[in-house]
Amino acid sequence: MSYQIPRGTQDILPASSSKWQALEQTLRHFCYLYGFNEIRTPFFEHTNVFKRDNDSSDMVNKEMYTFQLANSSTSLTLRPEGTAGVVRSFVENKMYADPDLPIKMYYMGPMARHERPQKGRLRLFNQFGVESLGVKDPYADVEVIVLAYSILKALGLNDIKVLLNTLGDDESRAAYRNALREYFAPYVGDLCADCKRRYEQNPLRLLDCKIDHDKECMKDAPRMADYLNEESRRYFDTVCQALEQLDIPYEIDSKLVRGLDYYTHTVFEIVSLNKEMGAQSTVLAGGRYDGLIPYFGGPEGMSGIGWALGMERLLIALEAEGINLEEDNGLDAYVMVLDKEARGYAFEVLTELRAYGYRSEMDLIGRSFKGQFKTVDRKHAKTAFLIGSKEMEEQSVTIKLLEKREQVNIPVADMVAFLDRQLVEEEEEHHHHHHEHEEE
Amino acid sequence: MSYQIPRGTQDILPASSSKWQALEQTLRHFCYLYGFNEIRTPFFEHTNVFKRDNDSSDMVNKEMYTFQLANSSTSLTLRPEGTAGVVRSFVENKMYADPDLPIKMYYMGPMARHERPQKGRLRLFNQFGVESLGVKDPYADVEVIVLAYSILKALGLNDIKVLLNTLGDDESRAAYRNALREYFAPYVGDLCADCKRRYEQNPLRLLDCKIDHDKECMKDAPRMADYLNEESRRYFDTVCQALEQLDIPYEIDSKLVRGLDYYTHTVFEIVSLNKEMGAQSTVLAGGRYDGLIPYFGGPEGMSGIGWALGMERLLIALEAEGINLEEDNGLDAYVMVLDKEARGYAFEVLTELRAYGYRSEMDLIGRSFKGQFKTVDRKHAKTAFLIGSKEMEEQSVTIKLLEKREQVNIPVADMVAFLDRQLVEEEEEHHHHHHEHEEE
Repeated sequence: MSYQIPRGTQDILPASSSKWQALEQTLRHFCYLYGFNEIRTPFFEHTNVFKRDNDSSDMVNKEMYTFQLANSSTSLTLRPEGTAGVVRSFVENKMYADPDLPIKMYYMGPMARHERPQKGRLRLFNQFGVESLGVKDPYADVEVIVLAYSILKALGLNDIKVLLNTLGDDESRAAYRNALREYFAPYVGDLCADCKRRYEQNPLRLLDCKIDHDKECMKDAPRMADYLNEESRRYFDTVCQALEQLDIPYEIDSKLVRGLDYYTHTVFEIVSLNKEMGAQSTVLAGGRYDGLIPYFGGPEGMSGIGWALGMERLLIALEAEGINLEEDNGLDAYVMVLDKEARGYAFEVLTELRAYGYRSEMDLIGRSFKGQFKTVDRKHAKTAFLIGSKEMEEQSVTIKLLEKREQVNIPVADMVAFLDRQLVEEEEEHHHHHHEHEEE
Repeated sequence: MSYQIPRGTQDILPASSSKWQALEQTLRHFCYLYGFNEIRTPFFEHTNVFKRDNDSSDMVNKEMYTFQLANSSTSLTLRPEGTAGVVRSFVENKMYADPDLPIKMYYMGPMARHERPQKGRLRLFNQFGVESLGVKDPYADVEVIVLAYSILKALGLNDIKVLLNTLGDDESRAAYRNALREYFAPYVGDLCADCKRRYEQNPLRLLDCKIDHDKECMKDAPRMADYLNEESRRYFDTVCQALEQLDIPYEIDSKLVRGLDYYTHTVFEIVSLNKEMGAQSTVLAGGRYDGLIPYFGGPEGMSGIGWALGMERLLIALEAEGINLEEDNGLDAYVMVLDKEARGYAFEVLTELRAYGYRSEMDLIGRSFKGQFKTVDRKHAKTAFLIGSKEMEEQSVTIKLLEKREQVNIPVADMVAFLDRQLVEEEEEHHHHHHEHEEE
C-alpha cells in the first residue's frame, strides 16, 4: 500500500524550512515596527463566514473545502483566505470598542482552495496578510501600502511596482456599475460564461477577466475615474499624493478591480516585472472594504483595509531575482566517537556543548572514523571532538579546529571556555577579512 | 445574523500572540542547538495516513475530522497529531537514504480532534513535536528526552519530572500481552466498555484507563519488566544509565503505556506537579515506534522516536508556575498630530522613523491633544513627537522625552541621530540601575 501526500499539497522539507523561517522573521519584524500584531484564527470556520450572501466571487462559488461531519449539522469550511476570519474575530471580540483604532493585525499560515492543480497553484498554500480595521482615512491606506512596499524591498525585490486604483464609495460604484451594464449590453452575448454571470452580479469584474481581457469592446469601456463623486475623488487624491511624497513608485491601473466583491475605495497590487514570473506576476494584493465589518455584525459604517500575499509565490519571485534567504552557519561541533566504550562520555560532552549554546551533533550509528569525518564535512562543522577511551579516562577532550587545522587535547572542564575563545576569534577574523574586501 | 467561532476552537488574539511567539522562539532555538530541523506537512492527509489497519487507539476510533468533498472520492482527514504526516513524508521523500541518520525534525501547528469540548480540551489545538527517524539506539532516545527536559527547564518550569517505561520489542510485548489477557480474563466483565475492547485489541492499554485505574484487579496486574527479553532489558538499562549520568531526574512508571498503539521500547512523559494543573498534568509525551516507518513503506526494521506537547497546555503549566513569557517593550515613538494641515508631514516623519528601525505609531483619527496623549501612555511610548504646521514649515520635529520629561525642537534631518543617542543612553541607564540593584 502506498501513502502519498494529497494532490495539490506539498511538504516543506527540513532542507527548505530555514528559507521559510527567514521570510517569516522579516515579515514579523516589519509588522513589529509598524505596530501590526499577530492574530491566529482557526483553520476552519462556519461556512457562512466565507460564503456570504452578497458575494459572487469565483473563490466562493467554486473552490472551497466545505464539509459536514457525520452526526453533525454544522457546515464547516477550511479557510480559503485570511480576511474573513480576522474580521469575524474583530467583531466577535468587540475590538471595535478599543480606544486606539485602527486595530492593526497580521496573520500567516495555510489556506485551502480546491482548485484544479496547476503550476504555481496549490490547494494548500501559505498566505501572509495584514488588516487595519476601524479607521477610514487615506493615511491608513497609505500605511499598509508603505508596509507592503517596504517589506518587499527589504527582502531584496527590485523589479516591482505598485498598481493602484479606486473603486470609490457605494454611490460612485453604483453609478459606474450602471454605466458598465449599459455599455456592455450589446456585447454580453460575446463574453465568456463567467462574464455573463459577472455582468449581472458585479460588472466591475468584467474588466479583469483573463479570457475577455483583449476583446475589442474592452478598450472603450467606461472608466471608474469618470464616475467618482467629490468625496471619493478627494480620498484617492490624498492617497496618491502621500505615496508621491514618500517616493513610493506607483501606477494607476483603471482596470484593477480585484477578485473579491467587498472592495471599496483604494485597491492595489504589487507586481513583479521579472520575466520568469510570467502570468503569475502579482506578488501582493489588497484593498479597502467598507461593508465587511458591518456584515459580521460590527458597527455600521466601520471600514477596514488590508492586503495579502502568497508566500510560495513570493519565494518564487525572490528566486527569480536570485535572492537567497537561506543561511546555514553549520555546526559548532561534531562529536566523533572513537570507540564504543566512550559513547556515554561522548554523549555527556555533547549535552554540555548544547547546554552552553553550541550547536552540536554526535555519531549515533557507530560508523568508522572516516565515515564520521564525512559528516563533519557535510555539516560544515567548525570543530570536531575526538572522543575515545583515552579521553574518557583522562576526562579530557581532543578538539580539531577545522579551519586552523590545529588539534588540542584539554581537560573537559576547560572545553567551553576554550570554545568561547576559539569561535569568537574565528568570527572576528571573518569580519576582518570582510572589511579588507570592502576596502579594496 | 451572528457569526461565531466554531465550538471548541479559539482565536489567539493580538494581545496574547507575543506569548506564543516567545514560546515558539525558545522551541526553535533548542531545536537549532540539537540539530532538529523544521518540517511542515499539510493540515490534511489521505485518511489512511491516520486510520491505520492495526491501530485501535481512541483517537482513531472516535475523534477525527474526516470528510469527502462533493464530486470527489478521496477521503481526507484533518491531522489529529503530527507523527503520521512526518513519517509519511520521511518515506515518500526517501529521507531514509540520507547518509546522516537519524533525520531529526520538529513540527508545530494546529491539530484537529473532534472531542467533546471541555475545559482544557480544544478541537483545534496547537502541538509541537520532534521526531528522530532512522536510528534505533538508546542514545537517540536519550537525546530526545534531554531535549524535552532542557526546553521545559529553560522555559522556567521547575515542578516537573520525567516518567519513564519500556514496552520492549515485539517479542517481549507479545509475551506481556498474553500474560495480561490471562490475568484479566476473570475480571474483563467488570471493566468499562472501552476496556472490554482494549482487552481484545491491545490489553496494554487497560493499565492507563482513566475509569478502571483504581479497581482492585489493577494492583496485582503483571508488570512489563518481568517479560522483557535480554535485548530489550539492556536497551532500557542504557537509557536509564545515561539519564542518570546527565542528571535528568526520572521515575520508572510501569503503568505508562501511552495512548497510541505503535509504541515499542522507551515511552515517557513529563508531568507537572503543580496543583493547579489537576488531572491535566502531562505536559509532554512520547516514545519509540518500531513499526511506523515500515508501515508507510519505508525500510523494514527502521525505527523512530519522538515526542509531542500541547502548546496550549504548556502555556497553562507555565502560568500555573507564575512564568510570564510576554515582554512588551512599548513604542519607540508616538507621532502626535497638532493640526490637520500637518498630517502629511507627520506621516513622512513616521515613515522615516520606521525605516530606521524605530517602532512608531501616529494618530490616524484626528483626536485632541489630550486624546492622543492618552495613547502615548497606553502604548508605553518612549518619546512623543509633536508635529504641527510650525514644525512642517521649519522642517523640524518637537520631541518629548517621556522618561526625562524634557522637550527639544530639532531639524528633521537630525532626528534619527538624536534618537539613536537618546534611546541608547536610556537603555544604558537602565542597565546601570539594574547593576546597582544587584550590588545592593
